[in-house]
Formats: sequence, structure tokens, C-alpha cells
Amino acid sequence: MEFDSDAIISHVEELVEQRQWPALREVLLPLPAADIALILSELPEDRLPLLYRLLPKELAAEVFVEMEPEQQELLIKSFSDTELKEVLDELYVDDAVDLIEEMPATVVKRILQHTDPETRRSVNEILKYPEDSAGSIMTTEFVDLKKNLTVADAIKRIRRTGTDKETINYCYVTDPSRHLLGIVSIRTLLLAEEDDVIEDIMDTNVVYARTMDDKEDVAQTLNKYGFLALPVVDAEDRLVGIVTVDDAMDVMEEEATEDFERMAAILPTDKPYLRTGVFETVKSRLPWLLLLMLSATLSGIVINSFEESLATYSVLIGFIPMLTGTGGNSGSQSSVAVIRSLSLNEIDFGDLCSVVWKESRVAVVCGVLLACANFVKLLVVDRWLLQNLDVTIPVALVICLTLVCTVFCAKVVGCMLPLLAEKIGLDPAVMASPFISTIVDVMSLLIYFAFASLILGL
Amino acid sequence: MEFDSDAIISHVEELVEQRQWPALREVLLPLPAADIALILSELPEDRLPLLYRLLPKELAAEVFVEMEPEQQELLIKSFSDTELKEVLDELYVDDAVDLIEEMPATVVKRILQHTDPETRRSVNEILKYPEDSAGSIMTTEFVDLKKNLTVADAIKRIRRTGTDKETINYCYVTDPSRHLLGIVSIRTLLLAEEDDVIEDIMDTNVVYARTMDDKEDVAQTLNKYGFLALPVVDAEDRLVGIVTVDDAMDVMEEEATEDFERMAAILPTDKPYLRTGVFETVKSRLPWLLLLMLSATLSGIVINSFEESLATYSVLIGFIPMLTGTGGNSGSQSSVAVIRSLSLNEIDFGDLCSVVWKESRVAVVCGVLLACANFVKLLVVDRWLLQNLDVTIPVALVICLTLVCTVFCAKVVGCMLPLLAEKIGLDPAVMASPFISTIVDVMSLLIYFAFASLILGL
Repeated sequence: MEFDSDAIISHVEELVEQRQWPALREVLLPLPAADIALILSELPEDRLPLLYRLLPKELAAEVFVEMEPEQQELLIKSFSDTELKEVLDELYVDDAVDLIEEMPATVVKRILQHTDPETRRSVNEILKYPEDSAGSIMTTEFVDLKKNLTVADAIKRIRRTGTDKETINYCYVTDPSRHLLGIVSIRTLLLAEEDDVIEDIMDTNVVYARTMDDKEDVAQTLNKYGFLALPVVDAEDRLVGIVTVDDAMDVMEEEATEDFERMAAILPTDKPYLRTGVFETVKSRLPWLLLLMLSATLSGIVINSFEESLATYSVLIGFIPMLTGTGGNSGSQSSVAVIRSLSLNEIDFGDLCSVVWKESRVAVVCGVLLACANFVKLLVVDRWLLQNLDVTIPVALVICLTLVCTVFCAKVVGCMLPLLAEKIGLDPAVMASPFISTIVDVMSLLIYFAFASLILGL
Repeated sequence: MEFDSDAIISHVEELVEQRQWPALREVLLPLPAADIALILSELPEDRLPLLYRLLPKELAAEVFVEMEPEQQELLIKSFSDTELKEVLDELYVDDAVDLIEEMPATVVKRILQHTDPETRRSVNEILKYPEDSAGSIMTTEFVDLKKNLTVADAIKRIRRTGTDKETINYCYVTDPSRHLLGIVSIRTLLLAEEDDVIEDIMDTNVVYARTMDDKEDVAQTLNKYGFLALPVVDAEDRLVGIVTVDDAMDVMEEEATEDFERMAAILPTDKPYLRTGVFETVKSRLPWLLLLMLSATLSGIVINSFEESLATYSVLIGFIPMLTGTGGNSGSQSSVAVIRSLSLNEIDFGDLCSVVWKESRVAVVCGVLLACANFVKLLVVDRWLLQNLDVTIPVALVICLTLVCTVFCAKVVGCMLPLLAEKIGLDPAVMASPFISTIVDVMSLLIYFAFASLILGL
């Protein structure tokens, strides 16, 4: 089925207006939960509780999980205690945690009152982990087996307990003190003989994460090995949860979005673009704009100290944007390449020398080629076509030598800053384009005026 | 097990030097295939074939899949025909396709000679799909069931054929002409009664992709619904393959990397940073640097046409980098926010008006606040602290009004360009920072000189 949301939404809107509830059920019920949530979010808010009640219990809970926090809050407020308990009973622990993290305190209190004690204990345990840790994204509902079970018994156990587990694709073999001994995939179980013993077919070389590991590293590990879930152990090596691949994908996507935002001088928000209000957006954008604007005072000071010379040799002014621009672009190419490699774990601080050596060579080649192209362009376009007779060969020389040096400095600074940031524990992504540009602006102006003094005798 | 690659690699290097083959096997065999591939890639190339032969057949094939193309080529060249056939027999069809796409023609010929006819047919079929399509990343090895089977029979069938399938987590129910009727997860099968009939327990509301769909959309769909695999149908609605979540994760990561590169004015390469040679890197970076450098001629022309006025009012020169910089940063904030939302399918061209409306309001608030801060800074820092008496109130006014207008124009242009690019079928990511900056440079200079003429009477 292909999902044409616009068509379905307008059809649903019509049905809502005509109060055709049975027809509505027929349209909604066959859809995946994520799509129903999307459709409901597009309808008038006051209709939401009513429409939500059209859904059968289990589907309703699935749809609930997929909704935006605003709608979840609205629904919870409209729920009777029994209804709330019904939804909460259907939630997986990790979804319950997500919900609690998003809701205001009063709603959280009501939610915790209506979850069963065991879930509440799990939820509270997960809530203790820091926001970026593996512990915070894990679920505590997994299939665990004892090593002396036979395959037939194991399958029986899965059939008995499997409905409550987030995934049955992997089963985790633990000893009585919950230490992880091995993993059996459901595939291995199905392909084994019924009287094989778990201990003999389990894989004992288990890749695992620790509760305090960075969730981005966990996502990278899942991706690297192509796993569908990764077990998470606590400080005492006891199995406490698993991270499933769908959560890892979300983490990867969030982290990439955060990097994009940081690289564009935006403070990360975790809301979709159109759902972020104007003032929230301003709050995420203004700080860096302000900081970068004020730090541009430096390049102003450099220019002002050469103001008189510039007034005499005014032809030089026109090339300032080109020089700072090319420097900024060269620097951001290097910094972005390094930032991305860092976040994909392709390089680390230990590669500093090989990175700088590579960027230096790239910079020399790029700088020289750009300078040659620019030299020709200056004489042909500026001097000959545009008849700007102030563009003499010495002036062209100043500009082209500045280009070579600026590109070199920009690329070297651009590749080093993210690595240094990583080393001292900052996010390398803040060292991207805007930050580099501000530094490179000052550098390129200093280089420019140095060559101008040297060659033109300013 | 936590994987400390540096420690293991130096241990392995030692064992290789001492020719301790049995000890080596003991170290390598328990590791996951991806890690063995990583370790082998760090050792001297001439040792590779020898070390590779230490691995048992099945593990060897898994390790082979995880290797870099250079090492795969080296190994294939060292293989006897029998060895080559053994590895190829163990490969899944999608891995075979990846291999063939990376190898030079002569190696491809030898590979195709040694694959069995059925796999060769599948490989050739997948190779026909365009590089960015769902067809190109799917695998043709999935479990298919007939609708009138009982659960017990279905499980028997899976046990018989499952070893050759990439995943058994979902089984696909097809009619005799291979049309997709429904899906049964292995979980549903295990939790059902043995004599239930597939038709009664299968899910008929199947989300699927088409062979020609964009692979990025397929990855987004898998992520949106939290699926582990997505069926792919051809133009005649026949089931031809499935895309699994591990491949979708790779696609998401690749696409994010490409967006990062495009946004930093780099032509995408699909090689890891340190494995890309200097000239390859230059080739991916020079074109945009050159184009942006040459297009900066425009801002040069604008400045030159006000050269004389600038010579009189030379205080204005020093604020050019700040104004163009702030404009560029404001524009790239908007463009990056829009580009990311586009690639996450949060917005499309139809949202143009609401995006522009939102950005306009954000721009007014940001612009006015920045202007106020700058006004204070001009009078306190520049005029009072730095004793730059040329910074008069009219001059400060020119600068601050320029700021407001530049931020506004930059944000509006910045949010519109990616949407327009998407509309006409270009990649929105090329409309990011560097491109926007070049346009904004010219705009901000024109606005600057317009206000200067108006207020200072240049």
C-alpha cells in the first residue's frame, strides 16, 4: 500500500464532518499506527479524543506511541483513569519512558499512579540514566533463557512470554545472577533440532554495550555489525536491557540533525521544523549569530588599521569578499569532512598528523590552481573586459599570493579545530563553517595586507 | 565483549611475525566478522591471503563481505577457482551485487563465471536497477509462503529453506503469480496455534516499496514504521525482493554524509576520509571553490562601483565582513533547517508559504535584536573604547538598518532556495551555506550602500 496522506486526510476530514463513524473506522483501521497518528494530528484538536476512541484497544496504544507529545498530553487529560490504565498496560517500557520524559509533572504523576508496580520500577530505573546514555534508550523487556533448556522448551517459553517482549529475534542466555552468557537468535532456534540444548547452540562471543555508553556509539555498533538489537549490561556485568535497531535508527537520525544544526550555527532543538515556534527558533539561532557578529569586530579592527592605505589603493577593497569567502569555503570543506569522519568513527585524535598532512597537500594543490585561475580572470575579466585599469600585475600578484596562503591556513585550521574540540571533550560540529569563517576572515585580511605592504609598499 | 582494536591489532601483528598460526586462529575466530575484517585490513597486504585462509569457510565469507574493495580484489586475485566458488556460494545476493559493483571488469567476469546460474540471474536483475533505487539495494532471498499453509507447515518450510535467506523475521505470502498478499512475522507464527492457517493470521495491510522508488525514501519508510524489512514489488505488483534494515541504515548514513558534503561545497565521494587520495580530494573540492570564487566577482563589482564613496567614508569598509558574515550565517541557518526537514520528509514544496512566513517572523526578531546589540556595541566599543570617532550615530544607523534588512533577505532567500531546488529536481543540499553566502554577499552590499547613500548622502 502506498500512503497518500493528503488524499486520505481530506477524506477523513469529510467523514468527520458528516459524523460517519463506522466509515471512518473502516478507513483508519487498516492503516499502520504511524499513519493513523499522522492523520489524527492533522484534524482539529477537539475531535482527537473522540476519534481516538474509535480505535480498538491494542491499535489505540500503538497509535498513542506514535503521536506528538502535545497530542499525547491532550489525550491523557481526556482519559478516564480506566482508559489511561488500558493504554499504559499496552506500552513497552521504553515507550513509557519516552512519554514520561515529555509530559509535564502533573501528568507524569498521574501516569505513574496508573502503571503497574513492575513497569514503574523499570521506568524509574531507566529514567536514572543520563540523557545520552545507552541506558536511557534501552528497553527492559527481552526474552531471557537458561542455558540448560532444550530448544523445544525454549520455544515453548517464548510462546508463553513473547507477547510482552519488544523483540523475540534474539534471546539472551543468562546465569542465575543475570550475567550474560550468550545469545541465541530465533533463527538459530528454529533451524536447530528440538532436543538441542541452548548452551550448545548459543553464540558466546557477544557484543554488548554498557548502560553508560554514549547512545550514538551504540547506534554505530548496531550499524557496524548489522545487528537487530544489542544487549546492555550494568557496572556489575548483569544484563539489564537491550537496545533495538529502530531506536538506534532514531538516534542516528537525531544525531545527524544535531550535527547539521550545530554546523549551521543553530543550537539543537529536538522538534520538527514546522512545530518549533517563532521564539523557540529565535532562541536556537540568535546566540551564535550574536557571538559571530560581535567576533567580526576583529576583522573590522584589522581593516580599520589599514584604512588609510585602502583609501589610496581602493582597488583592493573589492576583492575582500572574494578572499574571505574562498578562505571560509576552503576551511569549511576541511572541517566538515573531518567532523563527519569523526562522527562515523573513521578517525580520531590520533590521526591528527595524517589529517593535517593530507589537508596540507590538498590545500597547496587547490590554492595554486585557484590562484592561477584567478590571475587569468583578473587580467582578462577585470582589467580587459571591465576596463578596471587599477588591476595591475602587482595587484593581481598580491591577490593570488593571498589566495594560496589563505586556502592553506584555512584548510589546516579547518581540519585541526574539530579534532582539538573532540580531544578536549567539545562537540566537533560547533567548529564548522561559521566558526571557521570568522577565524579565517581575520587571517585572510592579515595575509592580504601583509602581501600588499610587501609588494605594493603600502 | 568490548572491542579494543589497537590492543588486538598489535597482538595479532606479533603472532603473525612469530608465525603462531594456531594461536592466531584462537584470537580471531571468536570475534565478529566486521572486527576480523578491520584487523586484517591493518596488517601488511602480502599476509592477507595467508591469514584469510586460517578462517573456517563460513566465517571467511562473512569476513570477506565486511572488507574494503581493495582487499576483496586482492583476495579474489589470490583465490583458486574452487576457493572463489566457495566464497561466492556463501554470499547473499545483495552482497554479491555490492561486490560486483566495486570490482574492475576482469574480476567481475571471473566472479560471474563462478556463481551458480540462479544467483547470476538475480545479480543481473538487481544490477539493472538505477543506483539510487530500492531495486539496487534489495535482496532477492526472502521466505515466501502460500496462503493455505498451516503454521506447522510454514515453520517446517522455514526450517528447510531458512539457512539461505537473509532474514526469516518476516515471511511474505504470495499467490501463484507472485503478487504479494500479506506478511507474517516469525513472532506471529511462533505465537499462533500450530493448525492456524497462514491466510487467517497474515497481515494484509502491507506497506511496500517499488523497485524504482528512491532508496532514501525506502530507508525513511523503514525508520518511520520501525520495520526490520520492507517488501519491494515491480511494475506488475509482483514481489521481487526485500530491503532489510541494516541496508536501510547504511543508506541513511550515506545520504547524511552526502548532504554534509554538499552543504560544505564538496562533491560527494563515497570513500572514507583517510582512504581518499589527495587528487581525488582536490577533484571533489576544487569545482565549487572555483565557481564560488569566480561568482564573488559580483560582490567585487558592487564594491568597485562605490569605490569613490568608500574612499571618502572609509569607516564603512571595516564593517563589510561583519555584515556579509552575519547575512551568510543567517541565510545558512534557514537553508540548513529547511534542507534537513526536506530530507526527513517533514516538509515539502507545498509548505513554501508557511516556511517563508515562519522564517520572516524569525528574521524580523533576530534582525532587530542583532541591530540593537550592534548599535550599543558600535557606540560603546568602537566609538568610546577604540576611540574610532568616525563611527557617528548616522553611520551606526546605516550599519544597523543594513543588518535588519540583510538578515531578513538572507533568511527568506535561505529558506526558499532549497524548496525551489527540490521542486525543479535538484538536490536541495547544494543550496546550503556556500551558495547562499555568495548571493547574500551581493545583497548585503547593495543594501549597505543604499542606506549609506540615503542617510550619509554618498
